[in-house]
Amino acid sequence: MTASGPAALSKSRFRQYARLHQKKFRDEQGLFLAEGFRTVRELCLNMPDDGMLVAFLVRDGEHEALEFARRWKEKLFTAGERECSQLSGTATPQGVFGVFRKRKHEPDIAESDGKQKKKSFVLALDDVQDPGNVGTIMRTAVWFGADTVICSSGTADPYNPKTIRSCAGSIYALHHYSVNSLETELLRLSGKGYTIAASSLDGRDFREFTAWPEKLVLVIGNEANGISLPVQALAQRLVRIPHAGEKPRVESLNAAVSAGILMERMFMR
Amino acid sequence: MTASGPAALSKSRFRQYARLHQKKFRDEQGLFLAEGFRTVRELCLNMPDDGMLVAFLVRDGEHEALEFARRWKEKLFTAGERECSQLSGTATPQGVFGVFRKRKHEPDIAESDGKQKKKSFVLALDDVQDPGNVGTIMRTAVWFGADTVICSSGTADPYNPKTIRSCAGSIYALHHYSVNSLETELLRLSGKGYTIAASSLDGRDFREFTAWPEKLVLVIGNEANGISLPVQALAQRLVRIPHAGEKPRVESLNAAVSAGILMERMFMR
Repeated sequence: MTASGPAALSKSRFRQYARLHQKKFRDEQGLFLAEGFRTVRELCLNMPDDGMLVAFLVRDGEHEALEFARRWKEKLFTAGERECSQLSGTATPQGVFGVFRKRKHEPDIAESDGKQKKKSFVLALDDVQDPGNVGTIMRTAVWFGADTVICSSGTADPYNPKTIRSCAGSIYALHHYSVNSLETELLRLSGKGYTIAASSLDGRDFREFTAWPEKLVLVIGNEANGISLPVQALAQRLVRIPHAGEKPRVESLNAAVSAGILMERMFMR
Repeated sequence: MTASGPAALSKSRFRQYARLHQKKFRDEQGLFLAEGFRTVRELCLNMPDDGMLVAFLVRDGEHEALEFARRWKEKLFTAGERECSQLSGTATPQGVFGVFRKRKHEPDIAESDGKQKKKSFVLALDDVQDPGNVGTIMRTAVWFGADTVICSSGTADPYNPKTIRSCAGSIYALHHYSVNSLETELLRLSGKGYTIAASSLDGRDFREFTAWPEKLVLVIGNEANGISLPVQALAQRLVRIPHAGEKPRVESLNAAVSAGILMERMFMR
C-alpha cells in the first residue's frame, strides 16, 4: 500500500460492522452489510445518494473493486484476510464488503405517495423465512413494478446479508415495510379498496381469472406451511399455479418462483 | 445409544462421503451427498427404489430423523459433531445427511421413451452457474412436466449438494443429462422437429407469442452473461419477459424466476 492508498479499518469499526449479521444491531445502528463485489456495486449504483454508503471494505489485490470504489475514496478501507472471514457469512469469504444505511419507509403506500393512486400493486410476505427467497422476491417485485412489499413479523429481514445478496441491488429501488400483524394491515388495505389475493395449493387455477383488480395485494406464504389461516380467511381470491399431469412429482414450487409467476400475470397488463 | 441402535460411521466411509463435495469424486463413485432432514427425506420418498439410498447419517439427538430412517436400519449410522461439520457445506451444519446413488440417464429423450412423443418440452441450461438456481429450475421443470433437462458443460452439477438442497427431492423425478456442446445437442434436437426458444433481454415480449410448438426446447442462459452467441444464433425464438415502467430499476430477473415464468406459459396449455 502506498501512503495515498486506502486506510486500514480500525478495530472498533470492524467490530461494529461484523455485528451487522444480527438484526438487533442492524436495527439499532440503522445500517446493513453487503458481501461480494457484484452486490456492493449494484447497491452503490442504486443508492439514492452517496450518503447511503458508510464504508467500502476491500481486501488487498481486489483491483476491480478498488478501481470502482475510487470515487468514494474517503470511505474506502482495506480489510485483512482475518477480518474478511469474520465479516463474511460464508465458508469462502469474498474480499469485498459494503456497509450501507437503511432507508426508512413509511407504512402507508397511498398516503406516502401524496395522492391516491388508481393502480397499485402490493406484495405481502406471510412468514417467508428464507432470506434468499425474500431477496429474490423483492428483485422480482421491482422488475414488475410493485408499489411496496409488506413483511410479516416472521418474514426474513430484508436487510439480512443473504437477502441483500439475492435482491441484486433492488433494496433501494423498492418501498417496503414490516408489520407486527399482517392480518391487521391487510384489513386496513382492504378498507382502502385493495383486493387481497393469496397463493394456496387449495386455491383456484390462477389462469381462470382473466381480469385482476387495479388495486391488488398478492400474499405469498411460508415455504413449508403456506398462507396462515387468518390471512386465508380474509383473502378474496385464493389462487394456485397448476402442475402438469395428474399428480405432481414434486410437492410444491419454490416460493420465489411462485411469486414471480403470479406477479407476471397479476401486475403486468 | 443402546446396543441395538445404529452403528457409528467408519473412518474410511466418512472420508469417502466427505469427498462427495467434489464433482470428480461424485462422478467416480456414482454417488451424491444430501444435507438436512428435509432434503434427505424428500429424496428417500422420491427415490425409484430402496437401492438408491447408500447411507443415512444422523447426529445423536435428531429423533425425528432417526424415527424416519428406521426402515433403512441397516443403512443408518450415527455421525459425531466433528463428522457433521466436515460433511457439511455450511457454517452451521445440520445433523442429517444422506448418501445416494446417481441415476444414469440416456441423452436421447424421444428414443429413451421407446416411442416418438407428439408433445415434448425440454429445458436446456446454457452455463447456469449457481447450484441453487439449477436446483430450483429442476424443481420447477418437474412441476410443469418437462421431459428432460439438458445441462451445458458450464452449468452447475445437478448433483452438487447445493443443487440437491434446492431441487426439493426432484432429482429422481426428472430425466436430465449433460452435454459437452449444447450447440451440437440443440442442432440435433432441431433436426428432430424441436423449436428452440431462448430467453434474452433483446428478445421479443414472450406474451406476443400466442401459440407454442408441441415440441419445444427452452434455453435459459448464464446469470451474468445470458445466452451464449452460438445458441442465440440457432434459436428460432428469442423471448424476453417485459418489465414495468420505462426503465427497470433492477438489471434483470433471477434465472430461476425467469425460467419459471417462461415454463408456465410455454409448457402448460
